[in-house]
Amino acid sequence: MTGLLTDLYELTMSAGYFEAGKAKQKATFELSLRRLPSNRNFVIVAGLPQCVEYLLNLRFTAEEIAYLRGLPQFAQVSPAFFDYLSGFRFSGDLFAVPEGTPLFAGEPMMMVRAPLIEAQIPETYLLSAITFQSLIATKAARMVEAGSGRGIVEFGTRRAHTPEAGVLAARAAYIGGCLGTSNSLTGLRYGIPVFGTAAHSWVLSFSNEMDSFRQLQKLLGPQTVQLIDTYDTLEGARRAAELGPPLWGVRLDSGDIVTLARQVRTILDQAGLRDSKIMVTGDLDEQKIRSIVSDGAPVDLFGVGTELATSGDAPSMGTVYKLVEVDICGIKRFTAKFSENKGTLPGAKQIFRLPDRDVLGRVAECCAGAEALLQPVILGGNLIEPLPDAKTAQARAAEAIAKLPAGLRGLEVAPPRPVEHSNDLMALIERTRRNLA
Amino acid sequence: MTGLLTDLYELTMSAGYFEAGKAKQKATFELSLRRLPSNRNFVIVAGLPQCVEYLLNLRFTAEEIAYLRGLPQFAQVSPAFFDYLSGFRFSGDLFAVPEGTPLFAGEPMMMVRAPLIEAQIPETYLLSAITFQSLIATKAARMVEAGSGRGIVEFGTRRAHTPEAGVLAARAAYIGGCLGTSNSLTGLRYGIPVFGTAAHSWVLSFSNEMDSFRQLQKLLGPQTVQLIDTYDTLEGARRAAELGPPLWGVRLDSGDIVTLARQVRTILDQAGLRDSKIMVTGDLDEQKIRSIVSDGAPVDLFGVGTELATSGDAPSMGTVYKLVEVDICGIKRFTAKFSENKGTLPGAKQIFRLPDRDVLGRVAECCAGAEALLQPVILGGNLIEPLPDAKTAQARAAEAIAKLPAGLRGLEVAPPRPVEHSNDLMALIERTRRNLA
Repeated sequence: MTGLLTDLYELTMSAGYFEAGKAKQKATFELSLRRLPSNRNFVIVAGLPQCVEYLLNLRFTAEEIAYLRGLPQFAQVSPAFFDYLSGFRFSGDLFAVPEGTPLFAGEPMMMVRAPLIEAQIPETYLLSAITFQSLIATKAARMVEAGSGRGIVEFGTRRAHTPEAGVLAARAAYIGGCLGTSNSLTGLRYGIPVFGTAAHSWVLSFSNEMDSFRQLQKLLGPQTVQLIDTYDTLEGARRAAELGPPLWGVRLDSGDIVTLARQVRTILDQAGLRDSKIMVTGDLDEQKIRSIVSDGAPVDLFGVGTELATSGDAPSMGTVYKLVEVDICGIKRFTAKFSENKGTLPGAKQIFRLPDRDVLGRVAECCAGAEALLQPVILGGNLIEPLPDAKTAQARAAEAIAKLPAGLRGLEVAPPRPVEHSNDLMALIERTRRNLA
Repeated sequence: MTGLLTDLYELTMSAGYFEAGKAKQKATFELSLRRLPSNRNFVIVAGLPQCVEYLLNLRFTAEEIAYLRGLPQFAQVSPAFFDYLSGFRFSGDLFAVPEGTPLFAGEPMMMVRAPLIEAQIPETYLLSAITFQSLIATKAARMVEAGSGRGIVEFGTRRAHTPEAGVLAARAAYIGGCLGTSNSLTGLRYGIPVFGTAAHSWVLSFSNEMDSFRQLQKLLGPQTVQLIDTYDTLEGARRAAELGPPLWGVRLDSGDIVTLARQVRTILDQAGLRDSKIMVTGDLDEQKIRSIVSDGAPVDLFGVGTELATSGDAPSMGTVYKLVEVDICGIKRFTAKFSENKGTLPGAKQIFRLPDRDVLGRVAECCAGAEALLQPVILGGNLIEPLPDAKTAQARAAEAIAKLPAGLRGLEVAPPRPVEHSNDLMALIERTRRNLA
């Protein structure tokens, strides 16, 4: 992983820490969810493996170091700093909330404790990696909720912000509850089920629709999903019905879905194809899915692309990576920012999850009967054990979401789940504020 | 580039084409801008080098092929198809609109002409690569317009949909008119200017603000940008002023920017620091930039993150990749889809740009005095000449945007630029429609 994949100021600050003799000061940064994304009651954490891979493999090549040396920002920096970069390794600790955990506003997702420079440089990468996948996992959970038991499949790579982001969006969507994805590489890399049969170009490449249907059936057998809207949806349905089994089902991609699904269902049923299913795609979001479901349309599976792979209604969220503790001359100093609307809380923290609320406490506290969510992942630069896979994270998310009250699970914004501060944390906040005043 | 980074259906269709003896049928696909993103009057094309790199390097590894063979969708596929995949190379042609070109609704961005399978598989990757960067270049152009001559710098990697997307977002933002980026890797890879000095963690890591300012100045000299809002913005400004030069300027990241910028300007001026500049960051978008500028706030440079790197108000756009021609048994067949709201136009096309309108014609037409926008990039699987760099694309965009009428350049949605169809194209549409009826 290239050390240059970070904001330049992480590197100028690092040079400054080095020159000021602060390279080895122990620092703790927290990556927190300052605000929930719009229209969200919780965020499902996803993206941890990418963060871990980054920290374990973060290096600076000779070419990268030569590039930095040539920048005006580094004109005054001593050669020793560049030597330091060439041997750079992350030797610190990472604590993180497991993938698949729902979090709420104000809660930390990760904590990095390392010598100051090692903790500073990863800011940009960690924020991007965990924020993006968490956005997508969260969006997927909303789709799944709207589907009310009907399956949701992720089809969004073409709309993802780069194809490579599509691979990870598919992984995150699976954690959020999708059955699988159209992204073949995600299937190979993460063992996630893959879906896909044919597009309009398939139908158009034959001289007539019936030929294209026949060839697809020959190719896919019981996996066949006929795309029936290229010319006329009901005509397409009749052709698929005429061909008969084997047929998984048909796909609708345009038109008035509720009406068409009913008509198509009738055509299939009358042909004795009661087991054949109806899949719907085309500019879906959780609201449209809910509406189709509540209208009682006979849809078995939804394929969702754009809105899911971009988290269309909330393509970003306010995660921050902030210094909460730093040793200065051997003395631990708690740090916080009290700027208007952009404040941060001092000190390394732990989230204690109770059935009806979370308590944010100091890291060494314990809280009877609560689950401590931030768990050690990397200690002294080493991964302590393999991370749970995407399937495990998916199960964790499903279980946790099921335990939330209906309001928080729903698509509308509900009163937030209480996130309290422990007495110790409140005392620390007050002490830090006084010291700064 | 891994062949598996595509939707599974591209590969099932490819297997089907192969089995149906259609592997070598020549096909033409167009990647078009079906609709403009919301709130946009044009789209600036960006992302072409990534598309080219993909096509030139598209391969299937043994591991990938083994994975496909194990999928139920490929259970009926003959071994010959997998042999074909193992030797897969893109041998076709790519025509594309140069990076930095503004396009309008209904216009093709790229055209791929190749044997059917070779043209089908790239759909997913090409759509994602060109759509994402074009979204960001377009968003950047809006920020630049709003800045009215003040510089805009891209700071959004931490909000991009993966850190790697951040690298390309920064490149695209530069094409759209940004001065540069905070992303160091973008700087190295694409020769784009990089910006960055220090964050709040820098200030907090010292026992007081003055120490942190002094150390930064020692590090950065004339490049110094003091971040003055960690504790109290005006107090911070006074400290920066007290230190005096060398000082590029100060950065405001919170609070009432218009008022603070004026007060800070006064503090700097009274200290004789008339040349020191004021930079503003923090949740900016083009509307806020315009408002700050029109309020006359003395801001010299804007740093924009989230909204730019995610194209926050329009994180997706309706690009499509559709079959427009295919040879069936040696006869050229024009294809189109006439579905409601999702139609496509048959035949390979060219965009003829005239001063006041575009004419969409058939590929072999010519149109006196017009610039033909789709240019050959890859012919017979080979890149015909190196692509223009990001700086050239930036200049092209700036020149083309400057020529647009003020309404189209502005932030509000204006009446669309006319995109007409040539007589030949209209005749072809009509003929194709009749043949399908």
